[in-house]
Amino acid sequence: MKEIAGGVCAPKGFLAGGIRCGIKASATKRDLGLIYSEAPCTAAAMFTSNKVKAASVLVSREHLAETGGILRAVIANSGNANACTGEAGLSAARLMTRLAAVKLSAKHSITITDNEVAVASTGVIGVPFPVGAVESGMDALIASMTDAGHDAALEAIMTTDVRKKDGAVELAIGGTTVCIGGMTKGAGMIHPNMATMLCFITTDAAISRDCLDRALRHCVRRSFNRLTVDGDTSTNDTVILMANGLAGNPPITAPGPEYDRFTEALLSLCVKLTRAMARDGEGASRLVTITVRGAAEEAAAETLAKSVAASSLVKAACFGADANWGRVLCALGYAGVDLDPGTVDVSFACADGEIPVCRGGVPVPFSEEDAKRILSGEEIEIRITVGKGPGEATAWGCDLTYEYVKINGDYRS
Amino acid sequence: MKEIAGGVCAPKGFLAGGIRCGIKASATKRDLGLIYSEAPCTAAAMFTSNKVKAASVLVSREHLAETGGILRAVIANSGNANACTGEAGLSAARLMTRLAAVKLSAKHSITITDNEVAVASTGVIGVPFPVGAVESGMDALIASMTDAGHDAALEAIMTTDVRKKDGAVELAIGGTTVCIGGMTKGAGMIHPNMATMLCFITTDAAISRDCLDRALRHCVRRSFNRLTVDGDTSTNDTVILMANGLAGNPPITAPGPEYDRFTEALLSLCVKLTRAMARDGEGASRLVTITVRGAAEEAAAETLAKSVAASSLVKAACFGADANWGRVLCALGYAGVDLDPGTVDVSFACADGEIPVCRGGVPVPFSEEDAKRILSGEEIEIRITVGKGPGEATAWGCDLTYEYVKINGDYRS
Repeated sequence: MKEIAGGVCAPKGFLAGGIRCGIKASATKRDLGLIYSEAPCTAAAMFTSNKVKAASVLVSREHLAETGGILRAVIANSGNANACTGEAGLSAARLMTRLAAVKLSAKHSITITDNEVAVASTGVIGVPFPVGAVESGMDALIASMTDAGHDAALEAIMTTDVRKKDGAVELAIGGTTVCIGGMTKGAGMIHPNMATMLCFITTDAAISRDCLDRALRHCVRRSFNRLTVDGDTSTNDTVILMANGLAGNPPITAPGPEYDRFTEALLSLCVKLTRAMARDGEGASRLVTITVRGAAEEAAAETLAKSVAASSLVKAACFGADANWGRVLCALGYAGVDLDPGTVDVSFACADGEIPVCRGGVPVPFSEEDAKRILSGEEIEIRITVGKGPGEATAWGCDLTYEYVKINGDYRS
Repeated sequence: MKEIAGGVCAPKGFLAGGIRCGIKASATKRDLGLIYSEAPCTAAAMFTSNKVKAASVLVSREHLAETGGILRAVIANSGNANACTGEAGLSAARLMTRLAAVKLSAKHSITITDNEVAVASTGVIGVPFPVGAVESGMDALIASMTDAGHDAALEAIMTTDVRKKDGAVELAIGGTTVCIGGMTKGAGMIHPNMATMLCFITTDAAISRDCLDRALRHCVRRSFNRLTVDGDTSTNDTVILMANGLAGNPPITAPGPEYDRFTEALLSLCVKLTRAMARDGEGASRLVTITVRGAAEEAAAETLAKSVAASSLVKAACFGADANWGRVLCALGYAGVDLDPGTVDVSFACADGEIPVCRGGVPVPFSEEDAKRILSGEEIEIRITVGKGPGEATAWGCDLTYEYVKINGDYRS
């Protein structure tokens, strides 16, 4: 497996595009994107666990259930979440998939049904969805589609995101090179199960629905669901993985070495996107990685790591490059997992080094100056050992800054 | 029942005092306080649910178990949490209670045992406790005790608190006037079960241990445990309620009208202290009250109200006086309680008026200008109806401001 350049258009047979249709007030920012596969795709998807679900989430879930997991395209917008918008919102989401299906069918002289198109939205909640803007922009959107349209489609789903978050990997399956590419949007309202995020992943691998679904769940649990920016789980979270089989590899249809290698490559891409989202968390100045080892089992390690990642006080200390490890112990203590404080070790680390600050639940002497230097980097790590068990997990987050408060104090304006 | 002036010294027979002994680096701030009852007290207490418990919490819990709930005094300090301090921390906490017991016994020519003294600490975690400072300050502390020492004792437990949070109420029990007084400390690391808070409540009522304990649990659940400042549950949370019986009322020994009236008065005081803590939340510019009605039961309403109070995005919107009610719906949706978004109403309110913003889960037109005015006050309310059930609950929180990040970016320095 190796990382390669590109994103959702890196695998064979995927086109993408993006335009400004007027959902956002901005006169320049793109707000409508489309990803299309030249061949029908096996698809797997995961959606928000929030009881309040956006219209786009409800419609995409319905479509995937109707087709048993077949997709041709995903249409996505920013500037309006189409959540808490009632029946009108549902009609708008359905119309978006219908427009895409009709126009793509006409352009490619094929028949794509409405339910072979998924829809995803991000932006402000509770504002009527301006579906007229989508209608009038549809021809331009179709015209924008190319096999180099990744960037335009990605821009079209960005809101408070500052950086583009994408990537691609390739690996050999049964002697054939297959590729997986992805893009993601997400900067705030991000908390596991799932992050406020839209993520679209494409692959040209031939793989069965069951295997694709299993691989996606495995990877989302160990990447996006271990990310927290602000503890808020959004109404719109969506991860869609589409596999069109155009690589021509011997199909992956059951667990085994080829499935494992595909899943490992997919996880590597998901972790890359997760880290990019943490790094681009609203207002974030640092990516914070929390590693917990020695727990009784992986689930306990996961709960502990996520509790530390989500602590406002730990996040604020990271902003201040303050080696306040007592807050780390505190966040471990309220995670709701059995914990013996007397067996907890903590150290802070960055690429340049590591400094132990707590051993067996009590302080070890350390140089405040060295700790400050280590915590001042753009990427820092909190390494925690809680005992001698086999459970390990990594979670990702970011620091809490003035800028986060500024961004979210008046998001709608 | 009526509110009266004063705090823990308002009930008969309670003395308090506070001094600077040198635990804090400050040359002027008090850091050691003591509350003492001239008669033995029946006592009830609740402590943090964090698995990492401060030495003071462990020692106080042990003492109350040993005596079956008898207390004479509470010694408390700020500037050092005495948490994650190992065996040395436990010895220091025990020594604090012993010093108080010995000095109080000598001064009042009585015998007070170590375990009739509780201890509470607040401040930085994981720094060796400077017990020598307490030893050398002990005589001055005893000398400072008066029946007007409430303010000095309260100052001695304040850390990032800006305002003093105290109060007292009186009521008649069986024709006799009894009084309940309290003080609390808490501004950050505050989240239900319990807030990072120290709270000491005194009463001269005669009341059995069982009734006192039951009343305290009833009231803490509906006050302090519905408060959130930053989602972090501390290692040191302590609420101690001491009843010395000096009012001479017919003792309350079983549930009934007198028990109910005592509990109602205690709840009123606890809610007052809770609101004061929310108002004084680290960096807070507004007290935010969240009321949920129409839930299936009280516990569901409580979970929903606390989820909204804890949402960083709701808190940041309150800071910006931004009527972003979609974030309220979102926080209700991920609370983990059954919810039909189609039956949710939301309005924003202040003392001057109320403005509905969402009805049946969808927007209602409203004046942004009016909403901005309502949300710009120092005390605002988010009123939520989720259905037609009998469950109601109120939670309290505050906005998320630049100042919170500043305070917590470098707390230790």
